[in-house]
Amino acid sequence: MDITVIGGTGEEGFGLTLRLAKAGQHVIIGSRYEEKGQTVAGKAREILGGSAEVDGTTNEKAAEQGDLVFVTVPYAGQADIYRAIKDHVAEGKIVVDCTSPLATAVGGRAWQVIRPWHGSAAEQAKSLLNPKVNMVAAFHTISGEQLQDIEHPMESDVMVCGKDPEAKAMVGELIDLIPHLRWVDAGDLTMARIAETMTALLVSVNRSYKIHDAGFRVTGRDSWGRPGA
Amino acid sequence: MDITVIGGTGEEGFGLTLRLAKAGQHVIIGSRYEEKGQTVAGKAREILGGSAEVDGTTNEKAAEQGDLVFVTVPYAGQADIYRAIKDHVAEGKIVVDCTSPLATAVGGRAWQVIRPWHGSAAEQAKSLLNPKVNMVAAFHTISGEQLQDIEHPMESDVMVCGKDPEAKAMVGELIDLIPHLRWVDAGDLTMARIAETMTALLVSVNRSYKIHDAGFRVTGRDSWGRPGA
Repeated sequence: MDITVIGGTGEEGFGLTLRLAKAGQHVIIGSRYEEKGQTVAGKAREILGGSAEVDGTTNEKAAEQGDLVFVTVPYAGQADIYRAIKDHVAEGKIVVDCTSPLATAVGGRAWQVIRPWHGSAAEQAKSLLNPKVNMVAAFHTISGEQLQDIEHPMESDVMVCGKDPEAKAMVGELIDLIPHLRWVDAGDLTMARIAETMTALLVSVNRSYKIHDAGFRVTGRDSWGRPGA
Repeated sequence: MDITVIGGTGEEGFGLTLRLAKAGQHVIIGSRYEEKGQTVAGKAREILGGSAEVDGTTNEKAAEQGDLVFVTVPYAGQADIYRAIKDHVAEGKIVVDCTSPLATAVGGRAWQVIRPWHGSAAEQAKSLLNPKVNMVAAFHTISGEQLQDIEHPMESDVMVCGKDPEAKAMVGELIDLIPHLRWVDAGDLTMARIAETMTALLVSVNRSYKIHDAGFRVTGRDSWGRPGA
């Protein structure tokens, strides 16, 4: 499968790129500037060595090429990115929005959030794409720093929100490729209204304890993944 | 210490009462009706046996008697309860609000929330009491059912929000009395805007997996408690 990571030059996106490519996936980094995308893809190949398959290109081309598209960009630029790629994302394709509407988007603090008009950043994203794109929201509470530390096992669970159980399960299969990362079906896309804000709560916990890698594990079951599986 | 649990006749409040009394604390259950408070206190003593100290009375008297006051009531009745007790809560007293603004308050679903005018149910509560009352928010994501199952070790962390580190640490000491429960300083009272909504996310997870005791553990440190301690 070809996986696109729009914003793959940023902390979260680069971490996700490394983890997925390390697990044997072909990752296409999307960037506003083709050359930057290519340079960062080269950096990823250098870190991973061997047969890692990472390419870089523009956001538009990356959105077209990937079978599944992650979007990991700051909220301030999120709408513009979606407008730029919207004609390049085919109907039925799965798009995974990873945005948290942190107040930093408007000069506020990273432990505060603003409320997107549509309820969540993911729903805003959905409103900007073809209605037949299959939107999923995930990865809000996963530290980009931890993702990039590729030898370090992850210590968090990914809350996955979306309407379509098949799409969530496909995203879940990719999450399962990352050691110790688990995925939890948190309900439909509107639940991103809550999941997205949990990033800010983790920032606040990090701030209280002067740490930088607080995360959440969901308790109540020994394993999660696809409900009913 | 005398601990008041307003709403101690409900699921969450009764569970908290059992756990704190089991740990040797004197708990005063507050209820709208004195007799109901007394009956439920009797039920708690019966469950705990031995020397458990649980009394029941009206919300007003309970608010006056406790050195520390928990308020565990549904959001629909929260404002009325605070108005009823406000003249009975002395300046400087610690009040721990445990309310989540679930949409059930207005006939909606338990995996949805409504937004209190003040930002969070805890901030709304604060606005109704003497400004010198020391408000803390906690216990939103802790299952009342699990609390009541007193032989079962808890599998969740309590997010504690509030302005005053001393008040949070005092609440934390009580949380530490409950086996396997840990507390995490989540920042100031405004962080309750996020912590309160996480209850609804857990309801959604419970719904996805047809379970009833999903919870959160915070990862990133082996132990939490008072920051810097």
